Amino acid sequence: MNQIESMERLVNEFSRLPGVGKKTAQRYAHFIIEQTESDVRDFADALVTAKERIHLCKICANFTDKEICDICSKQKKEPIICVVKEPKDVMALEKVHEFNGSYHVLHGVINPIEGKGPNDINIKSLLLRIQTENINEVIIATNPDVEGEATAMYIANLIKPLGVKVTRIAQGISMGSELEYTDSVTLSKALSLRREI
Amino acid sequence: MNQIESMERLVNEFSRLPGVGKKTAQRYAHFIIEQTESDVRDFADALVTAKERIHLCKICANFTDKEICDICSKQKKEPIICVVKEPKDVMALEKVHEFNGSYHVLHGVINPIEGKGPNDINIKSLLLRIQTENINEVIIATNPDVEGEATAMYIANLIKPLGVKVTRIAQGISMGSELEYTDSVTLSKALSLRREI
Repeated sequence: MNQIESMERLVNEFSRLPGVGKKTAQRYAHFIIEQTESDVRDFADALVTAKERIHLCKICANFTDKEICDICSKQKKEPIICVVKEPKDVMALEKVHEFNGSYHVLHGVINPIEGKGPNDINIKSLLLRIQTENINEVIIATNPDVEGEATAMYIANLIKPLGVKVTRIAQGISMGSELEYTDSVTLSKALSLRREI
Repeated sequence: MNQIESMERLVNEFSRLPGVGKKTAQRYAHFIIEQTESDVRDFADALVTAKERIHLCKICANFTDKEICDICSKQKKEPIICVVKEPKDVMALEKVHEFNGSYHVLHGVINPIEGKGPNDINIKSLLLRIQTENINEVIIATNPDVEGEATAMYIANLIKPLGVKVTRIAQGISMGSELEYTDSVTLSKALSLRREI
């Protein structure tokens, strides 16, 4: 097999992207070689510029290119904080246009297997915010998996003594899905969390 | 929705990669922001370096960082040229370690719908090579789809008058597949191309 060093290096870089295997990385690398030099320079510049300009909001730790992100600097917000695992969760929730409070990005969840404890995620500043921003509800919207649940419980126990209402995003069967194809853990959760109508 | 300009730009660049939609591009962009600055600079540098160094081999038009690619400059090759659509086809064939001739990369196939005629792909230099390199067989290994077949026929008609053997890579059912799940076009081709055993 003939190896071209600069090609191998590019393939390796693409392989580091999440969910990208060697074959896909090669496809991307071949695409790049077939672009014009100015297009490739634009791509490289977009990478470096984004990394240089984007950092974490001083308040909520979401991605921003300002000191304080657009959501945190918005006026007339409700005094509610929605706690999420990652910046992309903020994007997903903002698309719904239902929530008018602010967010708090943990940048991970408690995961003992990966050696991630409460001090490795962005919890401390949440407690500070609750006290200084006059928050009256914290919605914990971590994912409904083992780590997300454990993190939600941990945070809830920390917050409750502060006299703030703590809620968890609802779990159950997805809208539009069919009982037949719903996994048993979700079904059992949906049954136990049933509500009167 | 809060828009971060440099993030949007990076997402757009990733969206241009083959098979990458907006959602995947966002995932890649978020991954980039979470890398160290030096990692991102390495990625950007790999892009630009690969584009600067890699060009087409003067003989076979495969990707190379030299004037003539490793395969073309190899000694003791058989006087056979294998014609393929794209550089990645060379990689796929080289992995098999069965073929000891040289390649010729067309960089496309004849496709009237996309306005691609015989002059838009790398055919002319193939004819020149056949005459100067003392070639005695040309294997046409374009894909077995409509455009690949048409291109194979076109090239075969050009080469035959030069007195060179022209062959087409075999078509039929894939090894390890089952008749039941083989598409009907492949099955009909496999029947009509049956051979005595």
